[in-house]
Amino acid sequence: MEYNDIKTPQDLKRLNISELDGLCEYLRERIISVVEKNGGHLASNLGTVELTVALHFCFDCPCDKFLFDVGHQSYAHKILTERGEAFEGLRKNDGISGFPQPAESKYDAFIAGHASTSLSVALGLAEAAHRRGSDEQRAIAVIGDGALTGGMAYEALNAIGSEKLPVVIVLNDNNMSISKNVGAMNNYLTRLRVSKKYSRLKTEIKRAVSIIPIFGDGAIHLLEKGKKLLKRVVLSNKMFEAMGISYYGPFDGHNVREMIDVFTQIKSKNGPVLVHVLTEKGKGLKSAVTDPEHSHGISSVGAPRGNDFSDVIGEFLSFAAKTDERIMAVTAAMAIGTGLEKFSAEFPERFKDVGIAEEHAVTYCAALAAGGMKPYFAVYSTFLQRAYDQLLHDVCIGNFPVTFCVDRAGVVGADGITHQGVFDLSYLLPMPNMTVMCPTDGDELRDMLEYSLTFAAPLAIRYPKSYVTTRPHEPIVYGKWETMLSSKSKVFVLCAGGRALDIAFAAADEIKLNIINARFVKPLDKECLKEINKRCNIIVTVEDNVAQGGFGMSVLSYLNEIGKCAECAILAHGDGFIDDRDINSSLEKSGLTKENLIKIVKSLE
Amino acid sequence: MEYNDIKTPQDLKRLNISELDGLCEYLRERIISVVEKNGGHLASNLGTVELTVALHFCFDCPCDKFLFDVGHQSYAHKILTERGEAFEGLRKNDGISGFPQPAESKYDAFIAGHASTSLSVALGLAEAAHRRGSDEQRAIAVIGDGALTGGMAYEALNAIGSEKLPVVIVLNDNNMSISKNVGAMNNYLTRLRVSKKYSRLKTEIKRAVSIIPIFGDGAIHLLEKGKKLLKRVVLSNKMFEAMGISYYGPFDGHNVREMIDVFTQIKSKNGPVLVHVLTEKGKGLKSAVTDPEHSHGISSVGAPRGNDFSDVIGEFLSFAAKTDERIMAVTAAMAIGTGLEKFSAEFPERFKDVGIAEEHAVTYCAALAAGGMKPYFAVYSTFLQRAYDQLLHDVCIGNFPVTFCVDRAGVVGADGITHQGVFDLSYLLPMPNMTVMCPTDGDELRDMLEYSLTFAAPLAIRYPKSYVTTRPHEPIVYGKWETMLSSKSKVFVLCAGGRALDIAFAAADEIKLNIINARFVKPLDKECLKEINKRCNIIVTVEDNVAQGGFGMSVLSYLNEIGKCAECAILAHGDGFIDDRDINSSLEKSGLTKENLIKIVKSLE
Repeated sequence: MEYNDIKTPQDLKRLNISELDGLCEYLRERIISVVEKNGGHLASNLGTVELTVALHFCFDCPCDKFLFDVGHQSYAHKILTERGEAFEGLRKNDGISGFPQPAESKYDAFIAGHASTSLSVALGLAEAAHRRGSDEQRAIAVIGDGALTGGMAYEALNAIGSEKLPVVIVLNDNNMSISKNVGAMNNYLTRLRVSKKYSRLKTEIKRAVSIIPIFGDGAIHLLEKGKKLLKRVVLSNKMFEAMGISYYGPFDGHNVREMIDVFTQIKSKNGPVLVHVLTEKGKGLKSAVTDPEHSHGISSVGAPRGNDFSDVIGEFLSFAAKTDERIMAVTAAMAIGTGLEKFSAEFPERFKDVGIAEEHAVTYCAALAAGGMKPYFAVYSTFLQRAYDQLLHDVCIGNFPVTFCVDRAGVVGADGITHQGVFDLSYLLPMPNMTVMCPTDGDELRDMLEYSLTFAAPLAIRYPKSYVTTRPHEPIVYGKWETMLSSKSKVFVLCAGGRALDIAFAAADEIKLNIINARFVKPLDKECLKEINKRCNIIVTVEDNVAQGGFGMSVLSYLNEIGKCAECAILAHGDGFIDDRDINSSLEKSGLTKENLIKIVKSLE
Repeated sequence: MEYNDIKTPQDLKRLNISELDGLCEYLRERIISVVEKNGGHLASNLGTVELTVALHFCFDCPCDKFLFDVGHQSYAHKILTERGEAFEGLRKNDGISGFPQPAESKYDAFIAGHASTSLSVALGLAEAAHRRGSDEQRAIAVIGDGALTGGMAYEALNAIGSEKLPVVIVLNDNNMSISKNVGAMNNYLTRLRVSKKYSRLKTEIKRAVSIIPIFGDGAIHLLEKGKKLLKRVVLSNKMFEAMGISYYGPFDGHNVREMIDVFTQIKSKNGPVLVHVLTEKGKGLKSAVTDPEHSHGISSVGAPRGNDFSDVIGEFLSFAAKTDERIMAVTAAMAIGTGLEKFSAEFPERFKDVGIAEEHAVTYCAALAAGGMKPYFAVYSTFLQRAYDQLLHDVCIGNFPVTFCVDRAGVVGADGITHQGVFDLSYLLPMPNMTVMCPTDGDELRDMLEYSLTFAAPLAIRYPKSYVTTRPHEPIVYGKWETMLSSKSKVFVLCAGGRALDIAFAAADEIKLNIINARFVKPLDKECLKEINKRCNIIVTVEDNVAQGGFGMSVLSYLNEIGKCAECAILAHGDGFIDDRDINSSLEKSGLTKENLIKIVKSLE
């Protein structure tokens, strides 16, 4: 059988164990070649090839539920579950998602774009199976050590430990979340990892296991013995056991046979089990191993880098921190993605990577500000929503001067449905005391950051990954918009952010327009709106956010309040998830184009 | 000195240790008498009297930062910090807040109405103090074992363990969060608690401590010895130590002297320290000890109970679960508050209290639904916002039939600024696939719950604690509103929920109105809106939610889209936090009154 004939987990089970190493080799090559073409998560997927093969060999997907956390480590799983060919279209609109997606395949048990959710999902599925009388079904969560820094995973461990359901937790420990792993949990895992006594014992067990039939009763008997041996040493570190979860490991996550032994043995356990496997992020690709952080998510070959907003953040904070000792930069496992790499090297003591722990990050920033510091939390829009309550309750009620650098706002392209940053305006605008700004290019972002230094209240600056055009700007004045293009037309296009502005300028090549840079989305520039409204003009708002609760609705509501005379239209994303993997086609599908803007204007004239 | 002359922590320090028991007695009496009059949190505050006195005796508040988590256990602290007299006005508009509130007193270091935030705050304040060179300042978090079930606390423990800052964590362990404590962490703490060997050792240490001067060097020397003794036994349960946090305990939280010994000794430690104290919730009041869950939050004497929405939820689910095996009820430490007490007794296996862990609860429900169950998550509006990301990412993308019973929506009265449920419409409406309903009375809620049984998508039903009037209703039809009052007037009042409807009916006694029950806030009843708009009528929307992103803006935006002919006004809360402790005066301050409604109508006529 050729390896590319393995279309399903059933095909895989027909291989001899001796053939599995070759299969892993094949999978690794496929992953590298496709990710180099299409972009995607490389290092994490190279680290989980053997683990995935062993899981499919021992368990029965899709009857058993496989949950990858974060979902971006599921590429080998995708290739092995009827998506070998479709994998060529990874992260493309015509291809498959870069994350587990039940709408795409019955083998993907649950959507998983955000970290630390798998354990709650596993427990819920296990409970449902139990209630349905399907006690033989296993819910298997493969969770990275990075995802374990997320508090939600701990909430679920707490629940799993007190239930007696057969949840299998595979702790995929590569000592590396997205940035370098951080925190006390990591220190604890490191201690497990380096236990030398353990290694010796493991060798003994392995030898014993290798001489008995894998599926025989002997294995189960040995397991009990092996478990006791392991426990004596490793489990003196009783953290998981103290929570009621049986701990096994650590095992070599690149040794398929070893993992098959382990999974075969724990399969028949009734209560919750944690299997700790050690993997190497980027295994099999030299550059990915030596620099996995940069190989975490890579863009497809030839993709233009463009002008990057994140670079501006990093440069500005590094510069400003030299003279302003109050400045601190905080990230949740996204030092590179948010542009803070340089800052972290130059000011290691004033840089805090809290791991995948957005809730803690936000409240920690509130307290830093309360203590007189000037914290900047650089975070993707889609991840900031994990700390909604902390924003409202801990930052806004206290009115603390925390600046949120909200990166990847608007549609995000290849990461797709789970990562769209199109909700942040809607969740930020109702928060009292919050100010929200949108820069249209790097220069303006720099001005906004400069402005933030003396701004004494919560401030969110939201922007997509990159911008196209740089334009000259007026200085920032609180709550004031900026006229970018004046004409004698009755039409005023109010733009929130660079993508909106680009659409407006493109339209201005064809029809007469006034273009306003609504750099403050909150507060609105009411003077400007009154002025435009007075003359019963046409107003079109443009934003890369959902319409509900966004910029346009704010404007419309204010106009209505003062006695709306102007005609008004809102151009924004509609009420539905955007399952599209290309920024331009996402914008097109929502009508965020110059053609549609022109059409709207003409319909109102 | 009379005990009521103790106005500040400095006064307290002038007492002899032998007088402190009497002070505790005095505080306990004050708390009981005021809470019996004003309502408030009784049992938790009776449990922390000695602890609070010992902390103020040993540390220097406000220089040292005291953080109570959840903040409702801070009554003794309030009385001891210049608010002895003001305490008579606890939870009243003219009095003091029931939670720490920096705007009220310099002794309250941070706002704390939601659980599990104190550790992040403590670390942030400690870092800021360190950067300012104030290394002698201590951040002291008093966190309940219940708050420890919140994942955010764990995110912070992870960070605290890896920093070397002098954070003092006092684990106030009463083995009871708000409902009975749950989960694996609790089992772990129980094991610490019952260690008999430990108790014997503790007695020895105590004896040794009692013969040396408290502030002398001897005590520090003894600490080292004591620490080793303790460690030998208790810390074989290494959870906190494994995370890099020195563990001391458990100690008797009602023995002031013992705690003074402990705090005096750990005061000079440089790294993070956890002191585990055992307290009895409701200590000193018999009914509160025997039934602390019902004494958790009590309403003031004579407050009318009214018609309770929560009762309807509980009764309905208990009834429906008898025939529908899919029904499960989930709560996050709020079994009684949300009306699930009866259900939990009748269907213990299908009732899940996950502790203070809203994120886990929501994703767990998504998975239960994915597995074929019919989960109901009963939760307060202000706490559901802690799971914003899980709602959007785990429930709505997958379009799972989870029903959210969103209790305490709208203004909440005495709990005040941190607990207002006025943001949920704004955060729920932008979520694709989410349906949002508002019942106006218990009968309608019952109909909605009946309707939910066969509804196959995410559904939020939001309501305040109680309703005033029951009115006859039409059957529920998806997306259809209900006409409650027809007249020949051009004025249509669209009401989201019972409070809105009551205002409209009150106004109808004075002016002619049509009243519509907008029982579906999402989706809007577009046919109804088209019909009203066609005749260029006057539309006033009324909702107990902030205006930004709420019901009114949705209506306005839709009218604008179809070519608005009607005059439209939005009656809702404005853009600011509502720091008011009375439901009626909160509504009045926001203009949610019949007088204001009539005024608005007249201005549009």
